[in-house]
Parts: sequence; structure tokens; C-alpha cells
Amino acid sequence: MQKILEKINNNTLRVGIVGLGYVGLPLAASFAAAGIRVTGFDVSETKVAKVNAGNNYILDIRPEQWSKVQELKTLTASADFAAIAQCDAVIICVPTPLDLFHKPDMRFIESACREIGKYLQRGTFVSLESTTYPTTTEHFVLPLLEEASGLKQGTDFWLAFSPERVDPGNKIYDTRNTPKVLGAMTQAGLTIGKAIYSKAIDHIYAVSSPRVAEMVKILENTYRLVNISLINEMALLSGKMDIDIWEVIEAAKTKPYGFQAFYPGPGIGGHCIPLDPFYLEYIAKKFNFDLTMIHTAGHIDMLMPHRVTIKISTALNRHKKPINGSKILFLGVAYKPDIDDERESPALKIMDIVAGKGGEVLYHDPFVPTCTTPGGRGYSSVALTSELLQSCDCVVFTTNHSAFDVDWIVEHSQLVVDLRNAVKVGSDKVYKL
Amino acid sequence: MQKILEKINNNTLRVGIVGLGYVGLPLAASFAAAGIRVTGFDVSETKVAKVNAGNNYILDIRPEQWSKVQELKTLTASADFAAIAQCDAVIICVPTPLDLFHKPDMRFIESACREIGKYLQRGTFVSLESTTYPTTTEHFVLPLLEEASGLKQGTDFWLAFSPERVDPGNKIYDTRNTPKVLGAMTQAGLTIGKAIYSKAIDHIYAVSSPRVAEMVKILENTYRLVNISLINEMALLSGKMDIDIWEVIEAAKTKPYGFQAFYPGPGIGGHCIPLDPFYLEYIAKKFNFDLTMIHTAGHIDMLMPHRVTIKISTALNRHKKPINGSKILFLGVAYKPDIDDERESPALKIMDIVAGKGGEVLYHDPFVPTCTTPGGRGYSSVALTSELLQSCDCVVFTTNHSAFDVDWIVEHSQLVVDLRNAVKVGSDKVYKL
Repeated sequence: MQKILEKINNNTLRVGIVGLGYVGLPLAASFAAAGIRVTGFDVSETKVAKVNAGNNYILDIRPEQWSKVQELKTLTASADFAAIAQCDAVIICVPTPLDLFHKPDMRFIESACREIGKYLQRGTFVSLESTTYPTTTEHFVLPLLEEASGLKQGTDFWLAFSPERVDPGNKIYDTRNTPKVLGAMTQAGLTIGKAIYSKAIDHIYAVSSPRVAEMVKILENTYRLVNISLINEMALLSGKMDIDIWEVIEAAKTKPYGFQAFYPGPGIGGHCIPLDPFYLEYIAKKFNFDLTMIHTAGHIDMLMPHRVTIKISTALNRHKKPINGSKILFLGVAYKPDIDDERESPALKIMDIVAGKGGEVLYHDPFVPTCTTPGGRGYSSVALTSELLQSCDCVVFTTNHSAFDVDWIVEHSQLVVDLRNAVKVGSDKVYKL
Repeated sequence: MQKILEKINNNTLRVGIVGLGYVGLPLAASFAAAGIRVTGFDVSETKVAKVNAGNNYILDIRPEQWSKVQELKTLTASADFAAIAQCDAVIICVPTPLDLFHKPDMRFIESACREIGKYLQRGTFVSLESTTYPTTTEHFVLPLLEEASGLKQGTDFWLAFSPERVDPGNKIYDTRNTPKVLGAMTQAGLTIGKAIYSKAIDHIYAVSSPRVAEMVKILENTYRLVNISLINEMALLSGKMDIDIWEVIEAAKTKPYGFQAFYPGPGIGGHCIPLDPFYLEYIAKKFNFDLTMIHTAGHIDMLMPHRVTIKISTALNRHKKPINGSKILFLGVAYKPDIDDERESPALKIMDIVAGKGGEVLYHDPFVPTCTTPGGRGYSSVALTSELLQSCDCVVFTTNHSAFDVDWIVEHSQLVVDLRNAVKVGSDKVYKL
């Protein structure tokens, strides 16, 4: 323990970061910009090559931070896990998707642990950041690491869980200035973990165990899933009652306590909110516990693309048109504004349903040049011209990118379905969620 | 319209407030303290007599405001609605409970409207503040008032809805400094309503219709119901997983965006959160719409007293005792800390269940000297002594009044069930939710 603390104190430690995606690369950059030597590990040779060539591929990393990293030459990447043996700390930032049946897919964590275990040295600190069900660190990661390394947690190495809190597109909070929750298996692990993470992150908040830290992340995102689902359901009812839900939300926001605004839309997207709560639902079964709120929220979300398709159909019906044979343009496939990520985006699901009903589907997204729907349909973003807009039977606002010139789009469109309250002025052409 | 605006401008208008409860009396006091003449109406002769004798019975009214009202002599009360004829504005603040089958009980609004209608004069502004389902003002109040008065809304009188936002016990936000949402049937009604309410309230936020204003209040409290139910369900799971949910919440609060903390407890209480969302569920049926989130939240809440009773039973079981024959002391029956209101309090429901199972039930609450459970059992608050605590088989924290000396209570108790995270230090005696 004294050895690693000394290395931390004199900045000579080497941090290994496993997984160079939207969590791992910003974390690697934050350590590296602070002068800590970092080795990034990824199975993707493309990502490794980009990092080693000094090319950043994550929008959220600030250019000045990336320049600093290049200047200091503190970051290298590798697809070969043998270099784990040179790392004093190993931080796991691999994805935890759900499979097609909405069950946790632990393969990435499992293979990362097996690879790390092969090369793990005595005296190393290991932290998992991947969002997962509570007890994963203790009951899944720990035995894998011990088995693969032949070492014992608590004496030979230290294990912790520290959830990533990356919010893609957030202009204020990044990896460094977002407080980080950390729960370790032992007090020594907590002391070491705090010292290490403090190099890259301004504020570390310690909790009593990895399972508490795991639950923290699930609570944060379950809160979001449940509230987005609630407001989506209320938006659908409001539509029937001739009430503008967005006007309601703006007014509710004037309550100076006890309210936080969520906004309706075509459904939840991204790699956190549609996934994390279902990790908890999965483990809850083991405890004979039924999480009815998460289940209901999931139910609402699963139906949203269908309900939105009905809205499109209803709007077209006003123009005496069916979906079948209509040309329908989707504006934005990213799952939230001003980001380049279309994972789990509800837009793609709606495009599948509309295409399945015989609609001619097109999309435009300044951040996403090509995309593939869950149904396997491949599309390329089309250029947004007044001619294109005029030629479409229906234009659907699926993402409210700030680059969209909404007035101009409405002016040149025959019919607009606005799922994001993008259109601020009243118009007969516009049909809102 | 000019006449009423003149009276507003030179402060000569008279405001009638119907219902002198926790909403009406603070509003009356806010107008009266601003020098506006107010007549308060209530069917309770007791309340009328108290107001006329200068005795305040609502904790939230600040003593200095009440003194100002007495000094100005601007507030009188009456049980005779004939004085409505002298009012330029009539504001309805009557309760909207649910009946035993959780359906809206509109009797108080209905009888208030009939009485007001009898005496309503041309040129009067009428506003409803009672929380109710969207469309109530337009489809329920409007026809009642027009029929009873023989006058027409929009030409003879003006009708609006403005939801009360009273938060009993809130030390920062009171009637005057909490922004008020207002939706009127006509533009003239909105102009007049804003001018009138501005006498008593600092900030008026106008919306486009009464139904939007009605939905605002329902959204605010549905948000709370859903989130309290969510955290209660997560607390129950956490208990099974050996996770301290309160530690999880404190850690989640370090997320600087996109999270608002709610705390678990024995269930929801009071006259808003357990009721308001079910008004929306009621009207939604008319639109063939199923509000699954509200339904699920209501389901969780309905079960909480039973689940809490199981916790008490489990704690007693550790001491090899059953509920039947055990002496069980409940600390706090008010539905939230430091208030004197036990309406819809989950503590009363738990007391009923425990008494029904043969437990000897006692309670102590410094704010509530006597209470009656939904099952019709009457209790008086007992004095809190070390002898009493020692004699009880189990002590249950149902409300976290700040007056409770928690350490002293734990010290003298045999067994504590803590439903509010009142006990901060670990103890073998304490069993948490």
C-alpha cells in the first residue's frame, strides 16, 4: 500500500484504462492532461490507432485538454493487454448493453476481467466504472479477477466500483468537474482509490461499499427513466384533452421547490437511461422482488415509437394520405440534441415501423451521416433543401438539434409532426406530440 | 371591466374567500395584510368565530402578518353567503377529497358554487383554487355558476382557475412569495385576475386556459407521488440487498444536474399528493386513457402500510415476539415533520393494521394531541418518558419531527423501527426501512 501511495504522491504511477469509448477516453485524457502516464486499452485497433496518432474522436473532450495531452505525450493506447502488467491502477470502462431480451449482457466486463487478470500484478488498484446491477463488483468481478490472476483482493490487489457519470453534450459538467462516487471493498482500497481518482477528478465522494456505488448510478438513471416515461404518458393524455403539455411544464417550473422539469419526446435513447434500470430489475428477481415502477416505465417507453407512429398516421390522415406510399423525412436521429450518437435512439425505431408500413423513409442529421435501424435498414443523411422539404408528405422533428432552422423548415414543408416542441409559433401545418 | 379595474387600482375592492382552511386563511391574510378588505366564508361557525375574534389557527401564517391584519381590521368572516353580493372577487378554496373508492368528491366545490351563484353580482371575478381534474372550471364550475346566478361568464362575470401551491411547514415559501399560476376563460378575466392576485402575491404566471392551470398542479403533485413511490420501492429492495438507501440518495445528490432527491418513508400523506394524481386518473378514463404510472404509484403507496407492518413484525420476531400482545409506540402521526396535520397520514393506517393484529398501540406526537384512524380508532398522544420507552416492545419512528431527541429515545428503547432515517448512529436495536 505504501508503494502505490508513494507513486501517486510523486506522480509516477501509470494508469491503465480499459475501453476507449465515451467514458474511457475522456477519463484517460483527464489523467493524461494532469501529467499522469496513461495506457488506454481497447479491442478496436481503429481506436487504438487514432489515439496513438493523436486524433480525438469523442466530441466531449475539450480541444485545449486534448492539446495538453499531446504536448505532454502522457497517453498511449494498445490492443495488447500485456501492458496491464505495467499499470499501478486499472480502470474498466467497457459497455454493459442489454441483449435482445432486455437482459444484462456481461460479456464485455467478463472478457475485460479475464484479460486484466492474466497480467494483473501485486499492488494494483482495480476499479469498475461500467453501469451494472448492485453486487456485480463483489459477486461477478471479484471472483473472475482472483481466478484469472491467482491473487487475493484486499491483500494482493484492491477492488472498487466508481460509476461513470458522463453526460454527452453537457457544456458545463465534464469528467473533471463532475463529482465522482467511489465505493471500495476495503478501507485501504478506498484510500488508494481516492488518491488516484483525485488526479483526474476534482471531487471524490466515498461510500461504504461497491454495491452502494452501483446503486447510486442506477438510482440516478432510474429517476430519469421514470420521469421521462411519466411526462410522455402525460403528454399523450394532454394531446387528447387539448392541453399543451409544454405550456404546462413551463408553468410548473415556476414552482420554486419540489419540482424538476422533464420533457416529452418520441422515447428514451442513449446507452444509459434505456438500459441501467433494467439491470436493477434483473437482479431484483433474484431477491423475489418486482420493481413495478421500472416495469411500468419500460412498458411506456416500449410503446412510444408505436404511439408516435400513430401520431404521424393521424397527421397524414388530415391530408387524406396513408403512411403507405408517403414520403416521410425524419429530422435528427441522434438520441439527444447536438450529439453524434444514435444508439438506442427512438427515431430509428420509428423509422423501422414507418418503413414497415410502406412509408418512404428519409432522414437528415448534421451529426450522423449514416445509420442502421434496429430492423437492419441502412440510411444516409440527405441534404436539407427547400425542394426536399416540399416533396415530402410529412416532416418529423425527432431530435431538436440547435442547428435546425425551424421556421424555414416549417415554411417549406407540407406537414410537420413536432415531437420535440421545436416549432414555437402556431401553424395549421404543425401537429404536436 | 373598467369599474373593477378602478377598484383594484385604488384598493377599494372587496375580496371574498370561500373556505378558511390551510389555503383560504393564509390567502385571506395575505390580501388583508396588504390593506384589501376581505370577507372569509366558511360553513364552520367555529372557524368564523375564531377569525372574527382575531385568533389564527393556521401554523403557516406568520405572526407579524396576522398582527398586521388585526391592526388594519381588514379581515372579517361569515357563515352567511349573502355577503358574496358585496364582493368584487370571489376565490374558492374548498377541499376536493377522494371518496372511499378513490373517486373525486366534488360536493364541496358544487355546494360552494351553488351558494356563490345565488348572490353573485354582475362584474365579479371568480377564481377556483381547489386542486381538481383538468376541465373542471369549464365543464363543472361554469355551468353551475351560470345556472345559479342567471349570469353569463365572459360578459357578466369572469371565471378563472389558479391552483393553490401551499406547502405546509415550508419556512421559505409562503402564499405571498410562491409564484401563482393563473388561467382564465377570457383575456379580460386574465387581466382582472392578474391585477387582483397581484395584491396578495408577488408573482403571477399566466397560462392560456383554466385547463392548463389545472394540469399544472396535477403535474407538480403527480411528479411527487411517482418519485416518492419509486424511492419507497427502491428502499424495500435495498433492504433485501443489504444496501442503505439513504446513503445511496446522499451520494446521488452529488450529481450536479438531472437529479432531485426524494426520501423513503411509510407512505405518502397529506391532502395533496395522495389525492391529486387520482383526479387525473379519473378524468383520463373519459378519454379512454390509462395512466399506468399513476396507477402503479398508487399501487405501491396502497401497499406501503402493509409492507411497513411486515418490517415491524420482522423486527419483533428478532426478539421472539409477535405483534399480538406487544406494546408498540408510534412516534409522530403528522404526515410530515413539524406540522400539526395528520390527514391521510400513513402512520394512522399502520396503527390500524397493528391494532387489528392484536398489538397494543400508543402514539406520541407533540403537534397532534388526539387522532382517529381511518378504521375509527381514537387515540390520545401519550407523554414521552424513559419509563414508557422501556415498557414498549417496539418503538416506531413514523414522522421525523425535529423535536424528537433521537439518541435519548434509542437509548431507552428495547427495539426501534426507523422508517425515516431518524437514527444516525448504528445500533443493534435499530431496524431500518
